[in-house]
Amino acid sequence: MMINISKAVQLLKENDYFIILSHQNPDGDTLGGAFALFFALRKLGKKVKFECENSIPKKYEFLTDALINDAFDDGYVVAVDVADEKLLGDGLRKKYAGKVCLAVDHHLSHREFSDFTLVENKAAACEIVLSIIEKLGVEIDKQIADCLYVGIATDTGCFRYTNTTENTHLCAAKLIGLGAESGRINTAIFETKTKTYAALERLALSGLEMHFDGRCALMCVTEKMFKESGSDETECDGISALPRQIEGVLVGVTVREKAENEYKISVRTNEPVDACEICAKLGGGGHVRASGCTVKGTLDEVKKIVLDTVKESL
Amino acid sequence: MMINISKAVQLLKENDYFIILSHQNPDGDTLGGAFALFFALRKLGKKVKFECENSIPKKYEFLTDALINDAFDDGYVVAVDVADEKLLGDGLRKKYAGKVCLAVDHHLSHREFSDFTLVENKAAACEIVLSIIEKLGVEIDKQIADCLYVGIATDTGCFRYTNTTENTHLCAAKLIGLGAESGRINTAIFETKTKTYAALERLALSGLEMHFDGRCALMCVTEKMFKESGSDETECDGISALPRQIEGVLVGVTVREKAENEYKISVRTNEPVDACEICAKLGGGGHVRASGCTVKGTLDEVKKIVLDTVKESL
Repeated sequence: MMINISKAVQLLKENDYFIILSHQNPDGDTLGGAFALFFALRKLGKKVKFECENSIPKKYEFLTDALINDAFDDGYVVAVDVADEKLLGDGLRKKYAGKVCLAVDHHLSHREFSDFTLVENKAAACEIVLSIIEKLGVEIDKQIADCLYVGIATDTGCFRYTNTTENTHLCAAKLIGLGAESGRINTAIFETKTKTYAALERLALSGLEMHFDGRCALMCVTEKMFKESGSDETECDGISALPRQIEGVLVGVTVREKAENEYKISVRTNEPVDACEICAKLGGGGHVRASGCTVKGTLDEVKKIVLDTVKESL
Repeated sequence: MMINISKAVQLLKENDYFIILSHQNPDGDTLGGAFALFFALRKLGKKVKFECENSIPKKYEFLTDALINDAFDDGYVVAVDVADEKLLGDGLRKKYAGKVCLAVDHHLSHREFSDFTLVENKAAACEIVLSIIEKLGVEIDKQIADCLYVGIATDTGCFRYTNTTENTHLCAAKLIGLGAESGRINTAIFETKTKTYAALERLALSGLEMHFDGRCALMCVTEKMFKESGSDETECDGISALPRQIEGVLVGVTVREKAENEYKISVRTNEPVDACEICAKLGGGGHVRASGCTVKGTLDEVKKIVLDTVKESL
């Protein structure tokens, strides 16, 4: 059942034990939103646990100092920034399939899987979580402000992507006013490349392929490149932005090896191409300028499947 | 004489013929601020001219459709984002030295050269120009909003640098509300690499040097690299950000060949190193995290001079 913010706030007020879930391969928005909600509910005297399929990437660890789960069994399960039950990951799905009470999400491609669903068309789930926390009547402290700022900055490429709105900047201004250390956060998340990531980027870019008269750029990130560079998928947040950056490119594709014969595809587009339409055809989804899906097969098979699908949109 | 915004607004109201100047090698902030003021004064029925030592970089040309100078001789000369008379460039300096009436600037290292000087510690000169235009009582249309957004986005690395404040985001929110096409502007300025720039970046990065146990990264951009890549200095806005991005680097230096035995130095720092202090010792200036200067000598001599100065700050 689709609900609005007031109803979500009422549900959060009515319950006392919460299990908050992020999506697998967590990014700054799912973590920032989940952590902000965690700290806000605890400020209301509620008991809270956080769970995620994967470990938290190193660059977000500074948000987790006070993230200590309370001890209890059953609770009201809330998923933040999870567009589809599948995206909880296999482990959490086994545990929580059919048991999620409330989903808070900003993906228009959201597939309902919870009792109550709050979806708003915002750049980041954290914009919605900020409204929720304000309506809950919780005073937003530096810790919560940092979490929400991380989410908003992450999902907008630090206010660079076309999803950024007037509201996104108003949220950022508010959070900075409440103490969010935006400068330090941006430096850590956007302005710092680890030596291993810098090496991975060079390897991946050296194999960049151009297709369809330069309208599509495709880059592969393989296990071999991870080994050679010392990098891993937790460092890959930013890499999918690169192919789209080249002049004239409408569709930037990153093909990342996930397991044997299984590849994670990231699609980033420029106007007028719809990334979500491309990924939906391959069983995924996301946003109009940034979407993802998983495709099985050998690398060559996967590339052909993806390029054939991209071609239909050009 | 240092003045406040109200006095600057009074001076602009009192005069009818304006010559607006940007600094040499213009960036988005000096151009956005000058153009916004140009369009605002024209909306008040004043006659306006714009002058700059160099031609306008291609990526800012979309702001200049309505930028047609009125025909008149003498006028009230206003410099926007010009921290030092020298930065007008040799040609404009010959013409306007000692004749600048009002300077609007955000560089704390500003060296007074005009009758009236308005300096405020903001991330971008365009934040100040926005206040001026509001106080002038001019309705900000899409054209003016686009110009001001360009300046604010440029000087903050699209809200990424530590100079970005609550006010910066409030200005951005306001400008987007007034019609600034932020998404399209960001894509054009930040998310698009020309093929020639991408080639220059690869050449420059391949010669990146690490000094002082990895605390300083230095990169050279030579005439030979410009020729080989087909790029030129108008595309170099973003390149100086690269050396500082590497993990552990406190001082990122870019040495760019300007003429025979003359090099433009860009210094970008991370906390706690003061970039302005380093450049001031070499006759330049700027901001605490981003400054510049010009050093004469052979490439090897220049590198030694700069590195010796950096060393003192580490």
